[in-house]
Amino acid sequence: MDKQVNKVVLAYSGGLDTSVILKWLIETYHCEVVAFSADIGQGEELDHLDEKAKHTGATSVYIDDLREEFVKDYVFPAFRANAIYEGQYLLGTSLARPLIAKRQMEIAAMEGADAVSHGATGKGNDQVRFELTYKALAPHLKVIAPWRTWDIRSREQAIEYAKAHGIPLRDISKANIYSRDWNIWHMSHEGGELENTWNRPNEEMYLLTNSPQEAPDEEVEVVIDFEHGIPIAVNGTRMDPLPLLNELNRVGAEHGVGRTDLVETRLVGMKSRGVYETPGGTILFRALRELEMITLDFDTLAMKNTMALKYADIVYAGKWFTHFRESMDAYMATAAKYMTGSVRLVLYKGNVMIVGRSSEYSLYLEDLASFGESAYDHQDATGFINLYGLATGVQAMVHNRDRSAKGPAREMRAMAGFSEK
Amino acid sequence: MDKQVNKVVLAYSGGLDTSVILKWLIETYHCEVVAFSADIGQGEELDHLDEKAKHTGATSVYIDDLREEFVKDYVFPAFRANAIYEGQYLLGTSLARPLIAKRQMEIAAMEGADAVSHGATGKGNDQVRFELTYKALAPHLKVIAPWRTWDIRSREQAIEYAKAHGIPLRDISKANIYSRDWNIWHMSHEGGELENTWNRPNEEMYLLTNSPQEAPDEEVEVVIDFEHGIPIAVNGTRMDPLPLLNELNRVGAEHGVGRTDLVETRLVGMKSRGVYETPGGTILFRALRELEMITLDFDTLAMKNTMALKYADIVYAGKWFTHFRESMDAYMATAAKYMTGSVRLVLYKGNVMIVGRSSEYSLYLEDLASFGESAYDHQDATGFINLYGLATGVQAMVHNRDRSAKGPAREMRAMAGFSEK
Amino acid sequence: MDKQVNKVVLAYSGGLDTSVILKWLIETYHCEVVAFSADIGQGEELDHLDEKAKHTGATSVYIDDLREEFVKDYVFPAFRANAIYEGQYLLGTSLARPLIAKRQMEIAAMEGADAVSHGATGKGNDQVRFELTYKALAPHLKVIAPWRTWDIRSREQAIEYAKAHGIPLRDISKANIYSRDWNIWHMSHEGGELENTWNRPNEEMYLLTNSPQEAPDEEVEVVIDFEHGIPIAVNGTRMDPLPLLNELNRVGAEHGVGRTDLVETRLVGMKSRGVYETPGGTILFRALRELEMITLDFDTLAMKNTMALKYADIVYAGKWFTHFRESMDAYMATAAKYMTGSVRLVLYKGNVMIVGRSSEYSLYLEDLASFGESAYDHQDATGFINLYGLATGVQAMVHNRDRSAKGPAREMRAMAGFSEK
Amino acid sequence: MDKQVNKVVLAYSGGLDTSVILKWLIETYHCEVVAFSADIGQGEELDHLDEKAKHTGATSVYIDDLREEFVKDYVFPAFRANAIYEGQYLLGTSLARPLIAKRQMEIAAMEGADAVSHGATGKGNDQVRFELTYKALAPHLKVIAPWRTWDIRSREQAIEYAKAHGIPLRDISKANIYSRDWNIWHMSHEGGELENTWNRPNEEMYLLTNSPQEAPDEEVEVVIDFEHGIPIAVNGTRMDPLPLLNELNRVGAEHGVGRTDLVETRLVGMKSRGVYETPGGTILFRALRELEMITLDFDTLAMKNTMALKYADIVYAGKWFTHFRESMDAYMATAAKYMTGSVRLVLYKGNVMIVGRSSEYSLYLEDLASFGESAYDHQDATGFINLYGLATGVQAMVHNRDRSAKGPAREMRAMAGFSEK
Repeated sequence: MDKQVNKVVLAYSGGLDTSVILKWLIETYHCEVVAFSADIGQGEELDHLDEKAKHTGATSVYIDDLREEFVKDYVFPAFRANAIYEGQYLLGTSLARPLIAKRQMEIAAMEGADAVSHGATGKGNDQVRFELTYKALAPHLKVIAPWRTWDIRSREQAIEYAKAHGIPLRDISKANIYSRDWNIWHMSHEGGELENTWNRPNEEMYLLTNSPQEAPDEEVEVVIDFEHGIPIAVNGTRMDPLPLLNELNRVGAEHGVGRTDLVETRLVGMKSRGVYETPGGTILFRALRELEMITLDFDTLAMKNTMALKYADIVYAGKWFTHFRESMDAYMATAAKYMTGSVRLVLYKGNVMIVGRSSEYSLYLEDLASFGESAYDHQDATGFINLYGLATGVQAMVHNRDRSAKGPAREMRAMAGFSEK
Repeated sequence: MDKQVNKVVLAYSGGLDTSVILKWLIETYHCEVVAFSADIGQGEELDHLDEKAKHTGATSVYIDDLREEFVKDYVFPAFRANAIYEGQYLLGTSLARPLIAKRQMEIAAMEGADAVSHGATGKGNDQVRFELTYKALAPHLKVIAPWRTWDIRSREQAIEYAKAHGIPLRDISKANIYSRDWNIWHMSHEGGELENTWNRPNEEMYLLTNSPQEAPDEEVEVVIDFEHGIPIAVNGTRMDPLPLLNELNRVGAEHGVGRTDLVETRLVGMKSRGVYETPGGTILFRALRELEMITLDFDTLAMKNTMALKYADIVYAGKWFTHFRESMDAYMATAAKYMTGSVRLVLYKGNVMIVGRSSEYSLYLEDLASFGESAYDHQDATGFINLYGLATGVQAMVHNRDRSAKGPAREMRAMAGFSEK
Repeated sequence: MDKQVNKVVLAYSGGLDTSVILKWLIETYHCEVVAFSADIGQGEELDHLDEKAKHTGATSVYIDDLREEFVKDYVFPAFRANAIYEGQYLLGTSLARPLIAKRQMEIAAMEGADAVSHGATGKGNDQVRFELTYKALAPHLKVIAPWRTWDIRSREQAIEYAKAHGIPLRDISKANIYSRDWNIWHMSHEGGELENTWNRPNEEMYLLTNSPQEAPDEEVEVVIDFEHGIPIAVNGTRMDPLPLLNELNRVGAEHGVGRTDLVETRLVGMKSRGVYETPGGTILFRALRELEMITLDFDTLAMKNTMALKYADIVYAGKWFTHFRESMDAYMATAAKYMTGSVRLVLYKGNVMIVGRSSEYSLYLEDLASFGESAYDHQDATGFINLYGLATGVQAMVHNRDRSAKGPAREMRAMAGFSEK
Repeated sequence: MDKQVNKVVLAYSGGLDTSVILKWLIETYHCEVVAFSADIGQGEELDHLDEKAKHTGATSVYIDDLREEFVKDYVFPAFRANAIYEGQYLLGTSLARPLIAKRQMEIAAMEGADAVSHGATGKGNDQVRFELTYKALAPHLKVIAPWRTWDIRSREQAIEYAKAHGIPLRDISKANIYSRDWNIWHMSHEGGELENTWNRPNEEMYLLTNSPQEAPDEEVEVVIDFEHGIPIAVNGTRMDPLPLLNELNRVGAEHGVGRTDLVETRLVGMKSRGVYETPGGTILFRALRELEMITLDFDTLAMKNTMALKYADIVYAGKWFTHFRESMDAYMATAAKYMTGSVRLVLYKGNVMIVGRSSEYSLYLEDLASFGESAYDHQDATGFINLYGLATGVQAMVHNRDRSAKGPAREMRAMAGFSEK
């Protein structure tokens, strides 16, 4: 281990792990430690963090409100791209890590630090996301990942270390059943009874949302307006990204919306089980899908759907600050050019029900689709089908030359008395 | 119009359109007409169809129960492929058409008919699905699509024609607000107030499912067992495909599950709005997704997801009887080799909540993913991240040679006092 | 047939077909005809076209040099996207049609015409390309496609019509074995002996390029410089798009480069056989591929390769003026941000041999890849492989629980004396 | 380092590296070493390997001829899948590694060995391919990768070690400019002047093929027959896989065919430059592409092309023994069902020129594609284009509602005097 470290910027939460790390860095490297906490909407006490960090030994402390930047520059672009990992996970944690790490790099530059550190474990995704951002933005900095290098192997040993070093534990020593991550986009839960994939999560685990059962018996209708694939108003009231998401979180959580229980494939090769609460995000994703359906042609949408899979993969993998993500965003931004309009939906006991959508760029034309008279010429369909089906017909004919072939076409020809060539 | 037609097999439902067509074929071609009705679970009176068809002039009548074949050979393979058109439509109508058309071809062969006819309009998808199947299986038969060729332009004119020709109308002349299609997999609704995409569907439109509001206040838990991606048991009771789907339809419908309101892109280029009720199908798709998550590796799943988009497209397009669909099914069948296991879910007022999953082939290993001690070596992560992130680091370095570039990396290097080459 | 046409703009080449069409339009619609010819580098006499068109009855004649616009705004963007249809066809004709049709629309607007016409047949791709552009840019104009509507069924009948109507035939009546299309990007050949896919093309068919056999016995080295994926210099001499392509065509044709003999899938469902000569284009595509390899990361390149397939499909299909193509170009332009550098290649008797490439943004770092000492830590590879291969190992273990499974893993475990659970 | 190793099976070539490793394993682990060499067509002396290995200390020696298995079970299936890494590399080395590693596992089982070892370095792809195969087939075996763990850092130090330990060096100590890999499918070259990507390879580097310049002045015609995508005959002579490939290698090498100079993206994140000689493989790939063009419909081919990219990626990555590769092969085998026929090509001084192709399943029908009279109804094209272009027209109309939009459509409408709403 290279001991030549003078000043470290630590991504600090005030919890057990990063408190122990703060002290351990000082003890191990005899260096200064700058503690940095980002407010990304985790809704927890940040008030006493400063004091706590200093008490544990931090030279200086940064507590930065990054909520608006998070929603505007990270969450909404990924949302516009329809990025959902493995079809279910809305990437709440994945999107926050690059922003936190980027701010950490900025502080390192301002402070003249020569190293950065984080509290992510050696089995998870977050270590990768932190460190890929470090590599992308400041590859010259030394990275210290204590959970991969120190001798502490368990929560119990960490508590022991904390006690031995006089770290103020307050309530952080008490048993945490779950490993959680919280920001304005979502809250995740892992561990506890979830580790057996057959177990149903305990209702007490959920902290953000009502259960569908507890939700009000009355439905509520919500109308969301979008401009170029970005939400801009709720129920007719124009809002900035942060308050808009807050409002949708509020109404979604009340109505039991946004719980997802899934098994995902981690970056380091293993499967893990997680439960997510993403109330506002779930509403937004359902609405966007509808808006896409009336404003995008088949091809643009099909490519967007294909690219969305890859976009989600790389965000999950911590590759936010890459030329590839920028290139995909160029497609997404152009594809979203006409994704302007309104979606009307109803929330009721966990359901998000689409009930209407409109757009000045709607490709749905009532008179074209309706069953009455219109300019559409039914005769055209004959020519269309003949050519659209030409290859199918040619193939059928050609493949039936195969005498050994079985199947309906052959049987049918036999029944019809056709002699095979 | 070539008048040389001796015997036509008509896909006949007993409704207004195909009743008029039956008569019109006789009048126009002076030919025999064989009426054929498939029971694919539409749950309507088929009892008097025989009599009715004969009364309208049919030479002979076939009423065939294809329900088991439909579920086993069409619905379940497409389901295993995770085929969902444009992310939402479970392909209920699309899957039925090739089967109906195939049986029609078989009857044509048995009856020595030289033509087939269907009642699909010139603006919809079904004409394409019928006729592509005809081309694939019996390209020698003449195809008659009256809605594209006759002079009848509206429902009113069709009723007039029926009255003028003594076709028994019974209740079919009464106003149908909606255009519907029903089989054991789903019921679809188009037309009426749906033609304005902003309108919320009237509750009276729904015929299969309770609304979430009407559904019982008590949740119900359902466990579904799968073998190679095909459902084989519900709540521990092994069932054949048809009763299994019936059972899931029953419980799903009761609990308000499976309503979807969407706008889709039709084959003939226009957008159309449809509402679908697919209670059992919706439950099955949610369950399958979960089973995939624990039994498929990332790559196999990612390709399956990509292929599923294409699979849905071609089923929607009526290209069931193609070499391409067979080739994709070969992938799907092999990919499903280990998709054996159980999924536990809860139905409650419209929600399908996943609460557990298990498989003898589960790739989720509790001790690998848990946060305690295990065989997993945390140190490996350092090497992994270094190489996994190598390209990102190299790119960052190389791209920053661009003096005109803006962005965090450059600013950071500037802040850190790096002089640019 | 709606006879209400006052003025038609005809895409006119002066050949047999469009000469007959010019006259036929006048006879059939009693309308004015504006003849329009685009110079897109077909290298044929355009000198007497004006006179010829007027003699045949044209009210006015436009002969526009679109070569620069063609190369700059159509060919090079598609080239940057690596658009190759079905892996082989460089889209020479496909790219020209939208430009010609767009100019035709502009002339229609200037002339106040109410219809447009083209000479493409009813079996080919070009009719689709012309008419999709018309629909995209001026859907209000009437489209007249004589080959699909008139009674002339063959070349012989067309010549008869020409003679009967006093159309000056000069040399256009003499037998044309091949159907050809020529512009600055390529020349295509269809028909004649090519219609039997087993036949080797006659050497006389080729008009642009030397055969490899005829090409000089001395190789030549060519260096091409690119900026953001667009070629800007040859052998160190900066050139505008048009002269640059001319120069590469010259040297490529001399050295026997760019002949392709293929079977392709037409839009209207049939296969057709074509032979293409694309000397400069072939050189450029080989060079671009190399430049991509040193300047693009794996992910950006993989997505670009995937998108290139789709880009080629829609250009082939005449969907140039679409939101989808614009969206893909947004990706392509951003992906090409660092595609700046030089490629060194050797031309010799039909071969394009890559022999060198360099870029200020090259991701190839000599000291990283070399086999000597470097900063790369070999130990990292152990961790990388352990995690990169973790899923493979887990799967192998889990899948071997399948008692019925066969395969090397199972046999190996058996040989190794492992008892199966 | 865990010293508990009793018997190691070493993938042994008799070269400097594996000779040193053999001795080093014995010295380090005090274990038995079984030396294993596979004959995969590298065409080098395997005669004295036995003696040499024993002299260096091997307990026993296996020299197995795997050439037929290699071609039949590895090369040809990957070929049928059209697997080409990053568009250029035919995967010669990538395909050999899993076979060698599998045989190594079998020997380990037979010999009761508890470890395996290979001589791949810590910067290359081969270590990953060897070890992923180990993980897939025998995860219980210990893996020893000396280049990542020992103190030897360079070729010079390895020679020193050899001399110090009395390892017979013969000619292996003499300077090797290039790092090479050779088997029946290809020979690769890295290092030397290639490390500067701008340098043209020296002609002396090439060992398998004539240069185009040296190749005969007379062309030669070759006809290859395929059955289900696998080559079965050359010039009408039916051959087994191994002699067939040998014959194509012979004629290809003579005519200067199959040299490729490229930069590729390694698994461990860096770019590397390599030159490949793949004479027979290059001929086969060109021929297969042509066969696909006449026997596969557009959709099956498009999916095959998409999947081929992924197939190549995972073969390159050493993931041969995976459920994913098996699943893709299921698609490939079914897609190849009708890929039976003949391709006619001409070899001349480095060129592989396709000149003809035929198949009993050819989808090219001469009378459909020809320009004379036929059953194809030109009128159908009108209906086809109207519906095929419907979405384009609707979009154009809708998007032009955008008052701020610029572009040809808007300008055109303006020119035409349309007033905008």
